[in-house]
Amino acid sequence: GDAKTGRKAATACQTCHGMDGLSKLPEAPNLAGQVEPYLVKALTEYRDGTRNNQIMSVVAKGLSDTEIANLAAYYAGIQIEVLPPG
Amino acid sequence: GDAKTGRKAATACQTCHGMDGLSKLPEAPNLAGQVEPYLVKALTEYRDGTRNNQIMSVVAKGLSDTEIANLAAYYAGIQIEVLPPG
Repeated sequence: GDAKTGRKAATACQTCHGMDGLSKLPEAPNLAGQVEPYLVKALTEYRDGTRNNQIMSVVAKGLSDTEIANLAAYYAGIQIEVLPPG
Repeated sequence: GDAKTGRKAATACQTCHGMDGLSKLPEAPNLAGQVEPYLVKALTEYRDGTRNNQIMSVVAKGLSDTEIANLAAYYAGIQIEVLPPG
Protein backbone atom coordinates (compact mmCIF):
# COMPACT_ATOMS: atom_id res chain seq x y z
CA GLY A 1 0.00 0.00 0.00
CA ASP A 2 0.94 3.63 -0.44
CA ALA A 3 1.33 5.33 2.92
CA LYS A 4 1.17 8.88 1.50
CA THR A 5 -2.20 8.26 -0.12
CA GLY A 6 -3.29 6.43 3.00
CA ARG A 7 -2.41 9.42 5.11
CA LYS A 8 -4.89 11.60 3.22
CA ALA A 9 -7.61 8.99 3.62
CA ALA A 10 -6.79 8.64 7.33
CA THR A 11 -8.31 12.04 8.02
CA ALA A 12 -11.59 10.07 8.08
CA CYS A 13 -10.17 7.84 10.85
CA GLN A 14 -8.62 10.47 13.08
CA THR A 15 -11.60 11.25 15.30
CA CYS A 16 -11.32 7.77 16.83
CA HIS A 17 -7.80 6.60 16.00
CA GLY A 18 -5.84 9.85 15.73
CA MET A 19 -3.59 10.87 12.86
CA ASP A 20 -0.75 9.55 15.04
CA GLY A 21 -2.55 6.22 15.49
CA LEU A 22 -3.24 6.77 19.19
CA SER A 23 -6.80 6.05 20.21
CA LYS A 24 -9.11 8.87 21.25
CA LEU A 25 -11.82 6.56 22.60
CA PRO A 26 -11.91 3.64 25.06
CA GLU A 27 -13.34 1.30 22.42
CA ALA A 28 -10.98 2.27 19.61
CA PRO A 29 -7.60 0.54 19.40
CA ASN A 30 -4.29 2.26 18.84
CA LEU A 31 -3.17 1.72 15.25
CA ALA A 32 0.30 3.25 15.40
CA GLY A 33 2.90 0.77 14.20
CA GLN A 34 0.34 -2.01 14.05
CA VAL A 35 1.23 -5.07 11.96
CA GLU A 36 0.35 -4.20 8.34
CA PRO A 37 -1.21 -7.53 7.27
CA TYR A 38 -3.28 -7.47 10.48
CA LEU A 39 -4.66 -4.04 9.57
CA VAL A 40 -5.47 -5.19 6.04
CA LYS A 41 -7.25 -8.23 7.46
CA ALA A 42 -9.21 -6.18 10.01
CA LEU A 43 -10.46 -3.65 7.45
CA THR A 44 -11.27 -6.36 4.93
CA GLU A 45 -13.22 -8.32 7.53
CA TYR A 46 -15.18 -5.22 8.55
CA ARG A 47 -15.94 -4.46 4.90
CA ASP A 48 -16.99 -8.04 4.14
CA GLY A 49 -19.02 -8.44 7.34
CA THR A 50 -16.99 -11.24 8.92
CA ARG A 51 -16.03 -8.84 11.72
CA ASN A 52 -18.55 -6.45 13.13
CA ASN A 53 -18.48 -3.14 14.91
CA GLN A 54 -21.11 -0.44 14.96
CA ILE A 55 -18.78 2.19 13.53
CA MET A 56 -16.20 0.20 11.57
CA SER A 57 -18.75 -1.87 9.69
CA VAL A 58 -20.18 1.35 8.28
CA VAL A 59 -16.97 3.19 7.44
CA ALA A 60 -15.22 0.17 5.91
CA LYS A 61 -18.18 -0.64 3.66
CA GLY A 62 -17.09 1.41 0.68
CA LEU A 63 -13.34 0.75 0.76
CA SER A 64 -11.53 -0.83 -2.18
CA ASP A 65 -8.65 -3.27 -1.67
CA THR A 66 -6.28 -0.49 -2.71
CA GLU A 67 -7.73 1.98 -0.21
CA ILE A 68 -7.43 -0.64 2.53
CA ALA A 69 -3.83 -1.31 1.59
CA ASN A 70 -3.03 2.41 1.66
CA LEU A 71 -4.59 2.99 5.07
CA ALA A 72 -2.82 -0.05 6.48
CA ALA A 73 0.49 1.17 5.08
CA TYR A 74 0.01 4.58 6.69
CA TYR A 75 -0.79 3.37 10.18
CA ALA A 76 1.70 0.49 10.10
CA GLY A 77 4.37 2.94 9.03
CA ILE A 78 4.13 5.07 12.16
CA GLN A 79 7.13 4.17 14.27
CA ILE A 80 6.66 3.04 17.82
CA GLU A 81 9.06 2.18 20.59
CA VAL A 82 8.21 -0.23 23.34
CA LEU A 83 9.65 0.20 26.80
CA PRO A 84 10.27 -3.39 27.98
CA PRO A 85 7.95 -4.42 30.81
CA GLY A 86 9.56 -4.79 34.23
CA GLY B 1 -7.35 -6.11 36.11
CA ASP B 2 -4.17 -7.15 37.86
CA ALA B 3 -1.19 -6.77 35.54
CA LYS B 4 1.13 -8.95 37.64
CA THR B 5 -1.21 -11.91 37.48
CA GLY B 6 -1.85 -11.15 33.82
CA ARG B 7 1.85 -11.28 33.14
CA LYS B 8 2.05 -14.89 34.31
CA ALA B 9 -0.92 -15.82 32.15
CA ALA B 10 0.61 -14.00 29.17
CA THR B 11 3.23 -16.72 28.82
CA ALA B 12 0.45 -18.52 26.90
CA CYS B 13 0.24 -15.56 24.49
CA GLN B 14 3.90 -14.92 23.88
CA THR B 15 4.45 -17.22 20.90
CA CYS B 16 2.27 -14.94 18.77
CA HIS B 17 2.15 -11.63 20.67
CA GLY B 18 5.46 -11.60 22.57
CA MET B 19 5.90 -10.95 26.27
CA ASP B 20 6.68 -7.36 25.21
CA GLY B 21 3.45 -7.18 23.20
CA LEU B 22 5.21 -7.06 19.83
CA SER B 23 3.78 -9.45 17.27
CA LYS B 24 5.79 -12.46 16.15
CA LEU B 25 3.49 -13.30 13.23
CA PRO B 26 2.02 -11.34 10.29
CA GLU B 27 -1.54 -12.12 11.39
CA ALA B 28 -1.08 -11.33 15.08
CA PRO B 29 -1.45 -7.71 16.22
CA ASN B 30 0.90 -5.89 18.53
CA LEU B 31 -0.66 -5.63 21.97
CA ALA B 32 1.89 -3.40 23.69
CA GLY B 33 0.21 -0.35 25.16
CA GLN B 34 -3.09 -1.21 23.50
CA VAL B 35 -6.21 0.43 24.91
CA GLU B 36 -7.29 -1.65 27.91
CA PRO B 37 -11.09 -1.65 27.33
CA TYR B 38 -10.42 -2.59 23.70
CA LEU B 39 -8.37 -5.62 24.80
CA VAL B 40 -11.10 -6.67 27.24
CA LYS B 41 -13.66 -6.36 24.47
CA ALA B 42 -11.56 -8.32 21.97
CA LEU B 43 -10.94 -11.24 24.35
CA THR B 44 -14.55 -11.28 25.49
CA GLU B 45 -15.79 -11.32 21.90
CA TYR B 46 -13.44 -14.17 21.01
CA ARG B 47 -14.59 -16.12 24.06
CA ASP B 48 -18.25 -15.49 23.35
CA GLY B 49 -17.98 -16.19 19.62
CA THR B 50 -18.98 -12.75 18.37
CA ARG B 51 -15.47 -12.34 16.95
CA ASN B 52 -13.74 -15.23 15.29
CA ASN B 53 -10.18 -16.29 14.62
CA GLN B 54 -8.81 -19.77 14.20
CA ILE B 55 -6.38 -19.43 17.10
CA MET B 56 -7.98 -16.83 19.36
CA SER B 57 -11.40 -18.46 19.40
CA VAL B 58 -9.76 -21.57 20.88
CA VAL B 59 -7.47 -19.95 23.42
CA ALA B 60 -10.03 -17.45 24.70
CA LYS B 61 -12.66 -20.13 25.23
CA GLY B 62 -11.80 -20.96 28.80
CA LEU B 63 -11.03 -17.47 30.13
CA SER B 64 -12.96 -15.97 33.02
CA ASP B 65 -13.79 -12.26 33.13
CA THR B 66 -11.06 -11.85 35.75
CA GLU B 67 -8.44 -13.60 33.61
CA ILE B 68 -9.41 -11.40 30.67
CA ALA B 69 -9.12 -8.27 32.82
CA ASN B 70 -5.69 -9.35 34.06
CA LEU B 71 -4.33 -10.08 30.58
CA ALA B 72 -5.68 -6.77 29.30
CA ALA B 73 -4.10 -4.92 32.22
CA TYR B 74 -0.72 -6.54 31.51
CA TYR B 75 -0.56 -5.73 27.81
CA ALA B 76 -2.16 -2.29 28.17
CA GLY B 77 0.39 -1.49 30.86
CA ILE B 78 3.39 -1.88 28.59
CA GLN B 79 4.56 1.61 27.77
CA ILE B 80 4.91 2.69 24.17
CA GLU B 81 6.17 5.82 22.54
CA VAL B 82 5.00 6.97 19.16
CA LEU B 83 7.32 8.87 16.88
CA PRO B 84 5.00 11.41 15.18
CA PRO B 85 4.51 10.70 11.47
CA GLY B 86 6.20 13.14 9.07
